[in-house]
Amino acid sequence: MDTAVRAAHAARGALADRTVRSAFLRSAAELLEGAKDHLVEAADAETALGPVRLTGELARTCYQLRAFADIVDEGAFLDVVINHPDDTATPPIPDLRRYKVPLGVVAVYSASNFPFAFSVAGGDTASALAAGCPVVVKAHPDHPGLSELVAATLRRAAEQHDIPKGVVGLVHGFEAGVELVKHPLVSAAGFTGSVRGGRALFDAAAARPVPIPFHGELGSLNPVVITEAAAAERAEAIGTGLAGSMTLGVGQFCVKPGLVLAPTGAAGDRLLKSLTDAVSNTDAGVLLDHRMRDNFVAGVAERAELPDVDAPVTPGAGSEHTVSPGFLTVPAGRLAAEGEHDLLLEECFGPITVVARYEDDSEAGAVLSRLPGNLTATVHLSAEEAAGEGRGAELLAELTPLAGRVLVNGWPTGVAVAPAQHHGGPYPATTSTSTSVGGTAIERWLRPVAYQNAPEALLPAELRDENPLGLPRRFNGRLER
Amino acid sequence: MDTAVRAAHAARGALADRTVRSAFLRSAAELLEGAKDHLVEAADAETALGPVRLTGELARTCYQLRAFADIVDEGAFLDVVINHPDDTATPPIPDLRRYKVPLGVVAVYSASNFPFAFSVAGGDTASALAAGCPVVVKAHPDHPGLSELVAATLRRAAEQHDIPKGVVGLVHGFEAGVELVKHPLVSAAGFTGSVRGGRALFDAAAARPVPIPFHGELGSLNPVVITEAAAAERAEAIGTGLAGSMTLGVGQFCVKPGLVLAPTGAAGDRLLKSLTDAVSNTDAGVLLDHRMRDNFVAGVAERAELPDVDAPVTPGAGSEHTVSPGFLTVPAGRLAAEGEHDLLLEECFGPITVVARYEDDSEAGAVLSRLPGNLTATVHLSAEEAAGEGRGAELLAELTPLAGRVLVNGWPTGVAVAPAQHHGGPYPATTSTSTSVGGTAIERWLRPVAYQNAPEALLPAELRDENPLGLPRRFNGRLER
Repeated sequence: MDTAVRAAHAARGALADRTVRSAFLRSAAELLEGAKDHLVEAADAETALGPVRLTGELARTCYQLRAFADIVDEGAFLDVVINHPDDTATPPIPDLRRYKVPLGVVAVYSASNFPFAFSVAGGDTASALAAGCPVVVKAHPDHPGLSELVAATLRRAAEQHDIPKGVVGLVHGFEAGVELVKHPLVSAAGFTGSVRGGRALFDAAAARPVPIPFHGELGSLNPVVITEAAAAERAEAIGTGLAGSMTLGVGQFCVKPGLVLAPTGAAGDRLLKSLTDAVSNTDAGVLLDHRMRDNFVAGVAERAELPDVDAPVTPGAGSEHTVSPGFLTVPAGRLAAEGEHDLLLEECFGPITVVARYEDDSEAGAVLSRLPGNLTATVHLSAEEAAGEGRGAELLAELTPLAGRVLVNGWPTGVAVAPAQHHGGPYPATTSTSTSVGGTAIERWLRPVAYQNAPEALLPAELRDENPLGLPRRFNGRLER
Repeated sequence: MDTAVRAAHAARGALADRTVRSAFLRSAAELLEGAKDHLVEAADAETALGPVRLTGELARTCYQLRAFADIVDEGAFLDVVINHPDDTATPPIPDLRRYKVPLGVVAVYSASNFPFAFSVAGGDTASALAAGCPVVVKAHPDHPGLSELVAATLRRAAEQHDIPKGVVGLVHGFEAGVELVKHPLVSAAGFTGSVRGGRALFDAAAARPVPIPFHGELGSLNPVVITEAAAAERAEAIGTGLAGSMTLGVGQFCVKPGLVLAPTGAAGDRLLKSLTDAVSNTDAGVLLDHRMRDNFVAGVAERAELPDVDAPVTPGAGSEHTVSPGFLTVPAGRLAAEGEHDLLLEECFGPITVVARYEDDSEAGAVLSRLPGNLTATVHLSAEEAAGEGRGAELLAELTPLAGRVLVNGWPTGVAVAPAQHHGGPYPATTSTSTSVGGTAIERWLRPVAYQNAPEALLPAELRDENPLGLPRRFNGRLER
């Protein structure tokens, strides 16, 4: 681990040139695509996620690398601000020029459930390299072989641009992961995983003699609210859609809808009937590892035996390696105040969701007000509500404090790589206010520096008046594209 | 404390409208100016900083409140990014619209040394209110009366705009401060003060069940490097300038130059002669409180008795309430490796600096490489070096990793309120990558939220296609002013 961190640290100068960084990221995408068949086969052997999903995930990963290459080339992320001297200010303003510089070596903790997109060549690595930061990746033990293959591919891409291969380090094992976040030459960390593991590393990052930023994506319940009018309008479509979202990838998504507020009454009953039919017809699937399978089976059992909890379709163990999807129901009133049912407000990884039936808006609101932070919050509205009649806007405002992404009439599974994406949310969804997906993920690995009265001849090209690199910037107050 | 936090939390809705926020900030500036004589008198009675300095500081504080009002009106800080659906992306991009929302109640810990600009109505409060966050300020015990007066003034300004007066809370006492950062309704904290106090609060913020961002400005040595050529060119001007900067405000600035790398030899000797003359002719002054005076006297004594440390002008106790300025010298080689002289690499608050005499560039570089993080780093260059000949650019690059602001041929005391300002730096200068002065200080109190497929009728006005509020934004990839 120490060797990997030192090699990464020594490689940081080779990333200083933005044109080299973007070319490196594009080469990485190209080489990963070139090795697609081999990589997908290796990934499937270790994760059982299947070639269709894995091929798509690799394509997403390469798209993401190229998206960050475009961001590097554009340079808006440097946040250039230039102030010429201004004696009318109080106190007077000297010549000040600010932009952002890379933090240094970034520790990346891979996730199990996205062996490409949230692993060695995933969003944390892509955004860190784009920012000019070498990475040392802690490989996830569920796909160590694939991790080695992907790291080797990234290093080949680096060598094409004369970047030392140490720019992407890879370490294995629990101890190495724990020590990595404490290494004095590590300047920041990105993490995707469980609340328990992420919190332990967050605590270690904060307890260092020199604390470092720890951007962890931990756990999320991803609540879904279905209005009475929406259920009345399209109970069947919503029930079927929910079944698809909660069982997608055998429920192994951080944005799986884990709590659904559905109305009591006839429309809600129809919705549950559709959900029951669709989930009953969904095949059992293989979870990523046996520990997850054990946790799922135990977590389901513990939840199912709570008072007033029913299981229209019982989730649980399937064959030796599989689990079968299902869902629980509970009166929303049981969740409106602290008690043993709070267990239902904790994420249960795998193909299960909890449908809380509410009597009225205030009961639904009482449950929402008790939720911890989430990556997403979703509301299903009727056509009239979506058009602005009724409580649509109010519900959107009610969901906003709960999550980093708020969806209307959709499902949270599926996280687009886009400039406007925000994949993060109040704790425990994320340990910071940052995103791990989308263009602004690059901000995590930078810090600002201002130069005062530095002569033009000594200024970095990014900060010169004539703007030789054509960067978007704020120049004497005015935004320039 | 609990009452203050709850009142602040209850007031947050009143800050939702940006036009109300900017008007509130402008009224606050106006009322503070209106009460100038009274406030300056009260401040001087508690701090002994003198009416000239305090009048200037109040003007700065009002300028800062208005600068944030302008930032609120412009709205670029909302970081609006809009993506229309794009099926050509991998995976396809839905309609996504992102902006930033206020975090919630902000705890502000005031500094002793700026009773206006880094206290109740200072930069943390101004930027938090600008972001839409109510504040609860922990008053500094060195100016409790002034804190009450300023808080009352801010509340009068709030009431002019129908904002509940709880929007600015004020608490006194060590225990209240410790409990404040742990309060479940506090969402973030800003701090200016000592490493010990700041680190304790940072640790408490990180250890909460729900950790919160803690933006603390702690300690800084603010190194100054004087090249051989600069000393040869203008030893006297540099020596006099340094004396002015290190004794300004009786050395009670977080950006006081605390370590100066000056060359050995004749030019360096001339520089020291000027410094000696100027410091000897500087009057003793009153420190903010007796604890600081005791720490200063003890800190000086401990440093002065280290081997090879000389005191051309001995800093120390003056009369009962004052201290007299001075400086120490040490061969730079003593600081190039770990040892007892490391004490000289720690901030000593008050009118003292340490001049380390270096033999050559590599010795100076060795000292720089051992420094902890700083708010500022300064280099004095000759005219030729400033024009690009010699090591100027190299030195700038060497200083950049050490600090958040890098100055050429100037002095770090004096922190302009400007869009390009960065007043922060690697730990322990700051506990995060943020700034506490300048336009981007507002970023500390916001988090992004993305809306997915939200119908136009329900979207906040900030995120609508037609841009009714005229906000700068990124629209389908393109930056719009």
